[in-house]
Amino acid sequence: MPDFLPPSAPAGRPGCELCREAGGTLVFQSARWRVIRADDAAFPAFYRVVWREHVAEWSDLALADQAALMGAVTAVERVLRDGLAPTKINLASLGNVVPHLHWHVIARFDWDSRFPAPVWAAAARAVEPPPAARLRVPLEELDARVARAVAALAPAA
Amino acid sequence: MPDFLPPSAPAGRPGCELCREAGGTLVFQSARWRVIRADDAAFPAFYRVVWREHVAEWSDLALADQAALMGAVTAVERVLRDGLAPTKINLASLGNVVPHLHWHVIARFDWDSRFPAPVWAAAARAVEPPPAARLRVPLEELDARVARAVAALAPAA
Repeated sequence: MPDFLPPSAPAGRPGCELCREAGGTLVFQSARWRVIRADDAAFPAFYRVVWREHVAEWSDLALADQAALMGAVTAVERVLRDGLAPTKINLASLGNVVPHLHWHVIARFDWDSRFPAPVWAAAARAVEPPPAARLRVPLEELDARVARAVAALAPAA
Repeated sequence: MPDFLPPSAPAGRPGCELCREAGGTLVFQSARWRVIRADDAAFPAFYRVVWREHVAEWSDLALADQAALMGAVTAVERVLRDGLAPTKINLASLGNVVPHLHWHVIARFDWDSRFPAPVWAAAARAVEPPPAARLRVPLEELDARVARAVAALAPAA
C-alpha cells in the first residue's frame, strides 16, 4: 500500500481529518492528490479523490489543478464503469463535515440499499448476499485497476 | 427568461425529463449547456448546470466538453460564494432518477434544514424565517448574477 503524504507544512489544517490521515484505504498517492477507497460495506465500490493541500472549495483551485483533479476522478469513474458495469456513477464534492476538498466517486447498482436515492438517504432495503460479493471484480483487483489508471496521470509521490 | 433549447435531434432521449424540459427556472441557455434554478424552498440557492445533449455519465464527455461544463459549474459556485457567503458549497452529479448529465451546485448554510448532512438526508430541523428570506441577495438578483457570470463563458443560444 502506498504511503500517505500529508499536506506540505504549513498548509495542513490542525484538526482536519483529511490533513492528518488518508481517510480510507490508500490506493494511490501522487504529489497533488490521492485516491482512497472508503471502506463502506453498503457501497463497496466507493472511492474518493482527495486534494493533498487543505482547500475547502472546488473554486479555490486554479484551473490547471481543477483539471488535474478531475482527470483523476474521470479515470476512477472509467475503471468502475469498465469493471463493474454499474447502473450509474455518482460524483459529489460536499465537505460539510470535513471541508477539505475531495470527490466521491461511487458505483451505484439498482440492487443497492438506497438506489435510486443518493447514498446519504435512508436505506430502502436490505441487501443479501452482501454488496461486495456481488461485484464482478474483487475489491483488491478493483483497487489495483484504479491505481494503474491514475498512475498513468501522475507519478506516485 | 431565456428559451429552453432541447437536444439536437436525434440525440434527445424519449421519456427523459431533461431532454423534454428545462427542469427548473431557466437562468441561462448556451448551445451546449444551460443553468437552471431548482425551485427548492428548503435550498433556495440550488442551481443545476445541465448538459444539453443526452449523455448519462461524466466520463461520456470529451475532455473539452468536461472543461466547458465545469467552467459553468465553477462560475455558478463563485457567484454563490461571493453573493451569499455560504457555509459550504455542495457539488454533485448523481442522475440515478434522471440519467441525463447535470451538476447540482448548492449553497449550504449551517442553519439549513439538513446541515451538515447532504440535502438528500432527512430534515434535522425546521427553519424560520424561511430560507429564501435569509439570503443576503434576493433570488432574482442572484439569478441575474449567475446569468451574467456564465454568459461570459459562452454566448446565449
